[in-house]
Formats: sequence, structure tokens, C-alpha cells
Amino acid sequence: MPESFHVVQESEHNALVEAAYRHRGYQPDEARDAARFCAEAARHGIRTHNAIKALHLDHLFGSGSHGCVPGAEIEELPSRFPASQVWNANRKLGQSVAYRAMERCIELADRHGIGQVSVDNAFHYLWGGGYVMDAARRGYIAYTNCTAALAEVVPFMGKFPTLGTNPHSWGFPTTNIIGYPLVIDWATSVVAMGRVQQFKREGKPLPPNAAVDENGQPTTDASKAVALLPFGAHKGYGLSLINELVGGLIGGSLPTLRSRWADDGDKHTPCFYFQVIHPEALAGGNFTKGRSQEENLKAVLDDVFGHGNESCVLPGQFEARFAAECAQHGGLLFSRAEINAFNEIATECGASTWDPANMKQVEV
Amino acid sequence: MPESFHVVQESEHNALVEAAYRHRGYQPDEARDAARFCAEAARHGIRTHNAIKALHLDHLFGSGSHGCVPGAEIEELPSRFPASQVWNANRKLGQSVAYRAMERCIELADRHGIGQVSVDNAFHYLWGGGYVMDAARRGYIAYTNCTAALAEVVPFMGKFPTLGTNPHSWGFPTTNIIGYPLVIDWATSVVAMGRVQQFKREGKPLPPNAAVDENGQPTTDASKAVALLPFGAHKGYGLSLINELVGGLIGGSLPTLRSRWADDGDKHTPCFYFQVIHPEALAGGNFTKGRSQEENLKAVLDDVFGHGNESCVLPGQFEARFAAECAQHGGLLFSRAEINAFNEIATECGASTWDPANMKQVEV
Repeated sequence: MPESFHVVQESEHNALVEAAYRHRGYQPDEARDAARFCAEAARHGIRTHNAIKALHLDHLFGSGSHGCVPGAEIEELPSRFPASQVWNANRKLGQSVAYRAMERCIELADRHGIGQVSVDNAFHYLWGGGYVMDAARRGYIAYTNCTAALAEVVPFMGKFPTLGTNPHSWGFPTTNIIGYPLVIDWATSVVAMGRVQQFKREGKPLPPNAAVDENGQPTTDASKAVALLPFGAHKGYGLSLINELVGGLIGGSLPTLRSRWADDGDKHTPCFYFQVIHPEALAGGNFTKGRSQEENLKAVLDDVFGHGNESCVLPGQFEARFAAECAQHGGLLFSRAEINAFNEIATECGASTWDPANMKQVEV
Repeated sequence: MPESFHVVQESEHNALVEAAYRHRGYQPDEARDAARFCAEAARHGIRTHNAIKALHLDHLFGSGSHGCVPGAEIEELPSRFPASQVWNANRKLGQSVAYRAMERCIELADRHGIGQVSVDNAFHYLWGGGYVMDAARRGYIAYTNCTAALAEVVPFMGKFPTLGTNPHSWGFPTTNIIGYPLVIDWATSVVAMGRVQQFKREGKPLPPNAAVDENGQPTTDASKAVALLPFGAHKGYGLSLINELVGGLIGGSLPTLRSRWADDGDKHTPCFYFQVIHPEALAGGNFTKGRSQEENLKAVLDDVFGHGNESCVLPGQFEARFAAECAQHGGLLFSRAEINAFNEIATECGASTWDPANMKQVEV
């Protein structure tokens, strides 16, 4: 069903987001990174992680709490491993850290074929898909995971939430083949807690095995749900556990302490992990029928999505379609409710509000 | 419910498996690698990928078909990337290739913090969990994926099987903490085709959304199931697609041609991908409360599996328990049906058969 959107110039969006971040004490370069990232999220239809969510998270867990420190400097720790770096982010804005870490991974992959950057004392980076999409568009295979802000997910066969929704994001350089990068990007819970709250408001049942009640029993009653379950039973549980293992090895806090700030001398920070592979470092050079590496990848995709599978949705296709709509309409697309939320942000930081009556409206 | 097993000395098992591989034309070192791997699978209760399955697969797709070439030499291709290697396995026995590739990844990780080996023209390596478990026991973080032999899985929202069951395997060095390595290891389909056939024989219904009928519609009727579905809807589908993307970039065949040998001048081989990370390359050095890296990881695991989650099964726990039973009983444990299958193998290669009457029996 088509939905009605207002068209906002990207420059206007970015100016407001930068002003909001500056108002909260962030440095100009941090505010620019934040705005750039929010524009990417909005452009790709990631409405759960656009500027409205970013600024809300910053209020709850970031500069409004103790989780994020405007103007913090990243400390690059010494490493004896040339393809690996570890950074202490000192709770710098997640988007600024993630953009730089992915950039460094690309440099390492250019030299070593593969490179990794681990980040301790991190803050939320919002949408891992955005960083891997960016690297994939530039021709790289990129991966990131992080420990999510809160422990909201119950381990398989457990009772109490001790895992984050712990997302994984992979990007593949397929732009020359299908017009956009394939981006595989999701949390390891069946649904997000925000979805549970939405379904509670709307009186709708949850999918089975998505949440548990206060006794740790699975429930489809959103009003009784207090914690989430991993997707795919033991398989999604294993994927969620990976982020806790990687985070624990980097130096992250106990999952149940994460983002729950207290003056207890303990750590409360999540971790990020980034990895980039140069596609040429995978190429066996023995592509059948004289194909190039890219032609072989195209032939594989044509095979997977042939044979009656032509209507499958590819991971990243929705995001690419939304970006095409934005390009066609000449701006970022926001609903009326989102415009109202932006106007609250404008009021908070003393910027001028947007008048929906003066904005182009489109159906998408 | 306890099950009855016969205890087979590992040396006796390995001698028979080596003889069987030698009989099929494999070199002594290949036969040793095959036996070592089969013993590892049996020791860890991986009954779907023990020697019986290994030799059956070799018959169907390996030396009995065109998929595997006894005595083939691995060709290490030139690479300009110091942390990355690509090998042309020339269809050498999968277990021999995988052991060597994981060994090389460890060497690369020792130098660079992370290392990867991609393998073109591969043959089946059976159970990825075995290789990552081995590396994790030695203190490394290890990962492998491969393109499964046949395209048996229908992409999300598709109709025709064009993806392999495409497994992923991760191992983490937790032996000092919990007594065994955490191993997260599974295929990306809900069930294997072998399970569908078993349920068909037994007249049992399949789990929902595990398989499709000839029209591409989901069915729980095992007798109508012709292809599999990924676990976790679009999430497992994305994970399955990753292996096809990596395989396609390495040089693998089209999924629907894989292991379906024909003199068509095309490729029919799967690919392997291996990656090892040195845990020190992740360490931020800022572990709270004076903990070491390992102590911090232990604290994270204690947190995840505390709070009422003490009865959760950890990934790798079942395998570790089975190995403990084998150690306690002084040998590898096989059911009567498995002993019969080994005796068929012995007859095939002219070795002496095992007499169940003379074997120690245990309940596990």
C-alpha cells in the first residue's frame, strides 16, 4: 500500500541534524558524521535508525546519560599484528568511530587482503548495514557486529535476558552486477523490543517464539512479553552469542551491565568489530568459461535467482529501491509524523521548523 | 533416553578407515587425514558425519564419481596479499585440504592477527565444526564456510532449490574457561535432506517452513517434500547466500551445477573459505577490575549463563560431553547399526570385520 511522504532536501536535513548534535555538545566533525549517517539511513528507508532514533538514543544512553562523550578522541592501541588494530573509542560518537574504523579496515585489506579493527569503550553505531553498504559500494566485502546497548534477549533454553539483540551485517560488492550492494543485515532476535511495544499498543499478537513472559515462558501476548528470544532457536542464539564472545575478548562489559550506567568502577560500554576483505584476495583465477571474477559472481546470482526464483527479494533490494525513490523525488522522504518529530528536534536546538504545507508530497 | 553403544578402539577404527580410503586409491597421508577426521567426528557424537557418511559421500560424489581425485596436489596460487592465500585444491580429499588450510590460517593469524585461505576446486570437507574446534582448542578464533555439495534449498520467497545447505562454523578458545571450545556450527536449512528422508520413512511430519513440495509451497508432509527452506526466513536465507557469494568470488561453480558432474567444460566444484583470528589481536588491554582477556571472557559467559540461565546448553557442550563419554569408556562409541555399516566397509576393502559379541557395550 503506497504511503505518503514529504520530500526534504538532504542539505536541509543535514543542517538540522548537525545543529541538533552541535547543540548537544558534539564537535563539528562529529555532527557532520552523524548527519551523513542519518541521511544514509533515511535514504535507504531505514526508518527505525534515522535521525529521530539517533537523537533519541543519544538522549537515553549517549550525551544525555554517560554513554557517549562529545569530542572524545579515539586512541589507537599498539598492536604487533599488521592486519589488525584495536581502538579505545573513549565513548566517542558511534557513527564517527564506525566510519573511521571501516576506512581503516579498507586500508588494511588493500595491503593484507583482509583487515580488522576492534573497538573497545564504544557507543551505539545505530545501523551496521550502513557501514558495510558503504564499503561494499566501494568494491569491498565488509562485515561488522556489535554488542547491542541492552541485554534484552534470553539465551536458548534460558529464562533471563542476558544477550543483546546483537546484530550482524555483511556487505558484498555487487553494484556492477545488480545495481546495488547486497547487504545482509539483521538483529539476532526475532523482533526488536520496539516492535513488542508497538504490538502491545495495537493489541496485536506477537509471532510465536519471539518473546517470553516474566516466568521465562514463550508468549505471543505482547502485553505480557518482558524479554526477547533469538531467531531460529539454537542457530540465532549462537549468532547472538558470537557478539558477546567477541565483545568479551575486546574488553566489553558484562552484558547485563551494558549501557546501565553506575559509579561502580565497572565497565558499561559495548564493543564494535569491523572486518574488510579485498575481493581480489579471494579470487582463485580459475573462473570457468573465461569469466572474470565479477562475471562468475553474476553467473552464480543469475543461477540462484533464475529457475522460477525471479521474484525473490535480494538482501539490500528494498534499501536500494527506497534510495531510487529518493533520487527520483530529489530529496529524503519522511512521513508527517516524522516531520513533526524533526520539528521537535528543531525546537530543542533553536533551529527553524519545517512547514509541511510548503513541502512537496509524494506517494511511495 | 540412554542408548546402547559398542566401544571401538580408536586405533582399530582408524586402521579400518585408512584401509578403506587406501582401497579407493587415496595416498597414505590422505587416508590418515580421513581417519583422523572421522575419529574426531565420532568422538564428538557427530553421527551424521562419521566414517560411514564420509565413505558414502566419497562413493556418491568423490572418488566414485568425478568430485574427488585421490593423490591430487594442492596448488598454492600467487597472491599479493600477505594475510591471504588462495589454493586450487584440484579436487583433493576435503579433510586433507581443510586441515592444511586451517593450519595455514593459524600461521597467518600468528603473523597478521587475522588470516584467510580460500579454496577453489574443492571436495566435501564433511563437518566444518571439526576444523574450527581443533583451531579453537589450540587457542584461536576460527571460522569456515563452504558451498554444500548440492543445491537443495529454495531461496526465501522462491520456488526452486538453487542454494546449498551451506553451513557456517565458528570456534572460540574457551577450553581454559569452560573445559571445551565453544563451537557454533550448523547448516542454513531448517533440516537436512537426510532428515526429510528419515521422516518420510517413519511417516512423521516435518517442522513447519522446513521444506517445499513440487510447486514450491511449504509442506510438513515429508513424502511431498522435494526441497528445503532456509532457517529463520530471510535471515537464514541471507546466511546461505553468503556462502554462494564467497564461493562465486573464489571461482566456484553455479550452485545448480555443483557436484552434478558432466563433460560440459563447466565447473562442478564447491569452494571452502577459512579464517583464523589471533585472540590477542582483538584485546583492547583495558579489561575492567584488572581482569585478563580470558578472565573477562569468563565473566561475560558467567553473566550470560547466570541469572537463572544455568541450564542452557552451550554450543559445543553436547560434543564435549560425548567426547568425555568416549574418554571414560576408552574408545569411540558406535551403535549396532553403525558396527554393521563398518563391517560392510571392511568387506569392501578386504579388512577383517568386527564381532559385536566381543565388544564392550555401554549405555550413554
